[in-house]
Amino acid sequence: MIATLKFTTLLLAVVVCWATQDYGYKDVEEPTLGDSQYGSLWPLPQKVQMSTVAFKLSGASFQIVDAKESSSGASCSLLQNAYRRYDEYIFPISRMQGQNKKKAFASDVSELQVWITSADSECDSYPSVTSDESYELSVDSPVAVLKAPKVWGALRGLETFSQLVYDDEYGAKSINRTEIQDFPRFAHRGLLLDTSRHFLPIKVILANLEAMAWNKFNVFHWHIVDDHSFPYMSRTFPQLSQQGAYHPYTHVYTPSDVKMIIEFARLRGIRVVSEFDTPGHTQSWGKGQKDLLTPCYSGTSPSGSFGPVNPILNTTYDFMTMFFKEVSTVFPDAYIHLGGDEVDFSCWKSNPDIQKFMAQQGFGTDYSKLESFYIQRLLDIVTTTNKGYMIWQEVIDNGVKLKADTLIHVWKGNQQQYQAEMARVTASGYQTLLSTPWYLNRISYGQDWQAAYKADPQDFNGTDAQKKLVVGGEACLWGEFVDATNLTPRLWPRASAVGERLWSDKDVKDTNDAYSRLIQHRCRMVQRGIPAEPLFTGYCAHEYKGV
Amino acid sequence: MIATLKFTTLLLAVVVCWATQDYGYKDVEEPTLGDSQYGSLWPLPQKVQMSTVAFKLSGASFQIVDAKESSSGASCSLLQNAYRRYDEYIFPISRMQGQNKKKAFASDVSELQVWITSADSECDSYPSVTSDESYELSVDSPVAVLKAPKVWGALRGLETFSQLVYDDEYGAKSINRTEIQDFPRFAHRGLLLDTSRHFLPIKVILANLEAMAWNKFNVFHWHIVDDHSFPYMSRTFPQLSQQGAYHPYTHVYTPSDVKMIIEFARLRGIRVVSEFDTPGHTQSWGKGQKDLLTPCYSGTSPSGSFGPVNPILNTTYDFMTMFFKEVSTVFPDAYIHLGGDEVDFSCWKSNPDIQKFMAQQGFGTDYSKLESFYIQRLLDIVTTTNKGYMIWQEVIDNGVKLKADTLIHVWKGNQQQYQAEMARVTASGYQTLLSTPWYLNRISYGQDWQAAYKADPQDFNGTDAQKKLVVGGEACLWGEFVDATNLTPRLWPRASAVGERLWSDKDVKDTNDAYSRLIQHRCRMVQRGIPAEPLFTGYCAHEYKGV
Repeated sequence: MIATLKFTTLLLAVVVCWATQDYGYKDVEEPTLGDSQYGSLWPLPQKVQMSTVAFKLSGASFQIVDAKESSSGASCSLLQNAYRRYDEYIFPISRMQGQNKKKAFASDVSELQVWITSADSECDSYPSVTSDESYELSVDSPVAVLKAPKVWGALRGLETFSQLVYDDEYGAKSINRTEIQDFPRFAHRGLLLDTSRHFLPIKVILANLEAMAWNKFNVFHWHIVDDHSFPYMSRTFPQLSQQGAYHPYTHVYTPSDVKMIIEFARLRGIRVVSEFDTPGHTQSWGKGQKDLLTPCYSGTSPSGSFGPVNPILNTTYDFMTMFFKEVSTVFPDAYIHLGGDEVDFSCWKSNPDIQKFMAQQGFGTDYSKLESFYIQRLLDIVTTTNKGYMIWQEVIDNGVKLKADTLIHVWKGNQQQYQAEMARVTASGYQTLLSTPWYLNRISYGQDWQAAYKADPQDFNGTDAQKKLVVGGEACLWGEFVDATNLTPRLWPRASAVGERLWSDKDVKDTNDAYSRLIQHRCRMVQRGIPAEPLFTGYCAHEYKGV
Repeated sequence: MIATLKFTTLLLAVVVCWATQDYGYKDVEEPTLGDSQYGSLWPLPQKVQMSTVAFKLSGASFQIVDAKESSSGASCSLLQNAYRRYDEYIFPISRMQGQNKKKAFASDVSELQVWITSADSECDSYPSVTSDESYELSVDSPVAVLKAPKVWGALRGLETFSQLVYDDEYGAKSINRTEIQDFPRFAHRGLLLDTSRHFLPIKVILANLEAMAWNKFNVFHWHIVDDHSFPYMSRTFPQLSQQGAYHPYTHVYTPSDVKMIIEFARLRGIRVVSEFDTPGHTQSWGKGQKDLLTPCYSGTSPSGSFGPVNPILNTTYDFMTMFFKEVSTVFPDAYIHLGGDEVDFSCWKSNPDIQKFMAQQGFGTDYSKLESFYIQRLLDIVTTTNKGYMIWQEVIDNGVKLKADTLIHVWKGNQQQYQAEMARVTASGYQTLLSTPWYLNRISYGQDWQAAYKADPQDFNGTDAQKKLVVGGEACLWGEFVDATNLTPRLWPRASAVGERLWSDKDVKDTNDAYSRLIQHRCRMVQRGIPAEPLFTGYCAHEYKGV
């Protein structure tokens, strides 16, 4: 990366930090604040060459347009929607009207031309783990050019372009001559939200998809149901949400809601991977689906409570076949997350029918064999839908036989333990995703974004071939203690740290430089309407207007 | 306290809690959830007698009115404003119009009569530490009566009345026959907000004053300036905010803003105690006031940086005299908080003029004597304004001579240390306030409201006379990591735990009962528009609508 000059003036955020004592406690390790040579870019592109020469963007004449040579044009609503969005980000105050013909000055950038270079722009496709998100951005006068093989790269480049624009000392929109070549380090850059422990209104989900796009995340891992509630409205089994949601119509996601969320995400190059976690974490399923869960026994009689999915009944597999057939059509993504974590054996152990089945199968008293039996059949069912699957690490820890393209999601243990797990999983030839260091529901006092920033999913003992099996990672915000009241500020800008780790080059790890850029990036998110919380003392030129 | 029955149906909040595993860590100690016999009352009144008999409140006819015998009536805007406010809380959906003459049914409560029993209602006064906040509430049909010696008790009783109203299974507004006698355990129940480390827009402050009233807090401790910024616009020294604020007009509190905040607080029975902390924590003061701060030396020449207020110049005391004269008129409260904490001696030590002064005064090398010298003179200055003062504990720790009515604010140390400090301070005959266990800026994963709830300011070794010197306490939300984006959900309902501790009887300490009431109280705050964060999994009937 080469960058030849600091921005002379970047007024988006001016933050004052004193080396003062504070009334709080003294465990805050404070990075040093200086101007980054990369301005407010976040996540940092792979290659940036920035000159001292600054151009102006005229609110009266600047436009984002399709390049003449582009394979995608006015008929691509994904791009047209993105132009509108980024136009509003760049010019948040209403633009002068009716002067679009005004001639640009020599020192202006009058156009950003968006040039899709591949014959198939993928404008109407869904993004996937193999989507090409690369782009090249050349900012010069009078024209800036954004070249990308596919629309996905164009979306990423538009965000980068908008981050290059700054206000000069008179408030004039300005941008420096810049050359950027960019592509993601990892193909899977996810964020998990949990809509079971608390219901999240649609607008909260949409707002966070928007913020994900600003941070170049590309997977919304929707942990949609769990023990606590079942807000997914199934067309095949409507009683699941009617009985299992917190409320049968105020606290559910209808098929239309789901469709809208998927389309909103697609327009931002974000995949929606749904998780329907079984056989544990299913208490809410049992309310609307008789005999699905295992009856627990107290001595010789049923206790009235229920355990994990009952793995010994054929009706269970009939249900799962129909249910996952629906899910596979509702969610277009090539992957489904099947969970498989934290199965509590105590209920299975208490049940005489299960005991008998264990004996018949020759499982002895090893209930992880019963769990594997269930998962194996479930995987076979899902395989018939032509979906790939993601599963939590316990499934492989317990020795279930998996398809070669299964994605193993690592979430447990301390640093040493998860690194050992990453090594084991990749040594077995499986692709993997890391989440352990990015459980953002865990909060602590002070600048905890730094710990998230320092973690690296390829930081384990393994060969180059093993490292290549790391597809990426996910930030997780489990829902025990968050809902619409506090989710967004708790997530941003802490998740931004994960966003940069997964997008930028592995050598981008200067915490001081990141701090300077992240402070500005956070103020930009606030200005765009997301209540991203402060990193430390200071202020934004445009503070959050809501309460 | 006597209570004879549970609410049969309290639909405000229905929360489902599973004894499930979670993806987070296992350090969450979860209270047991059951219905409280006290419904959603928060903080719990001193004496509650509740019957099974339920009445209805008709949206068409119910009114809050002045009792005929009341010493305060239609001319008291404090009460009339409160009636309007509580009417809207009780009937959040627009009421039927033009049917106010409709006859009430026998099973209705048609009126709440508010009866101020003392000749001087104090309607147009400011609340003070000696204000009478007691009230008696009798809910019966056709009339409920709220008796209070002063308007302050009426405000508290109106809040309690609104908390008694619940929706029956058909959504009809209902209230049980109830008798309540209530008064606060402590006279000073404060909340500290810090507008220096981050600027808080007026609407954030007003929203939190509103929430304070719902939790029967009565002191807004406004830590208005500090090292980081000086947003207080002084009429006498306008350059202080012009130079010292984050921005000279977007990030300041004008005299009109301050006036509005004080009046908004007064209407809710809340005192506004301003803090102008010196001689430390004053970096921002130095920008607009030449020679106020001590020049630090590096060897034999000034280093260019500055330390605490310069205590050896007469100009310092001239400035403080004029400044606190203004402050004493702008803030009507009888107390000013003068700070006095965390004075760093290193700059004083480096300065040859200070060294000379120390020698002249015979202070040797004991810089705490110099600090005391400064504070003593400052206290003399403030005494001439006829204000009382509050100071942080360091001032008394350092042996400064204080007026007998000084309030000592304890904030340091662990439990053992702060309890020892409370014992020392009260043994010396001083009144005291506790904040150490209520530094709510400190966050941790899980239900940390419980720790705040369990702390008790009278829990130290001392005589009854010493215990009586405990005037109350304050929850503190220092501003390092909060601004408009995240302050409100981070504060509520965690501060509510402190609210109950300071209002209710000392024997109110059943965490399970508190949990049940607090969950409902939290949903009520959400319904009234404050994004109070969830305590644990579950839901509110009316979720937060903002993002």
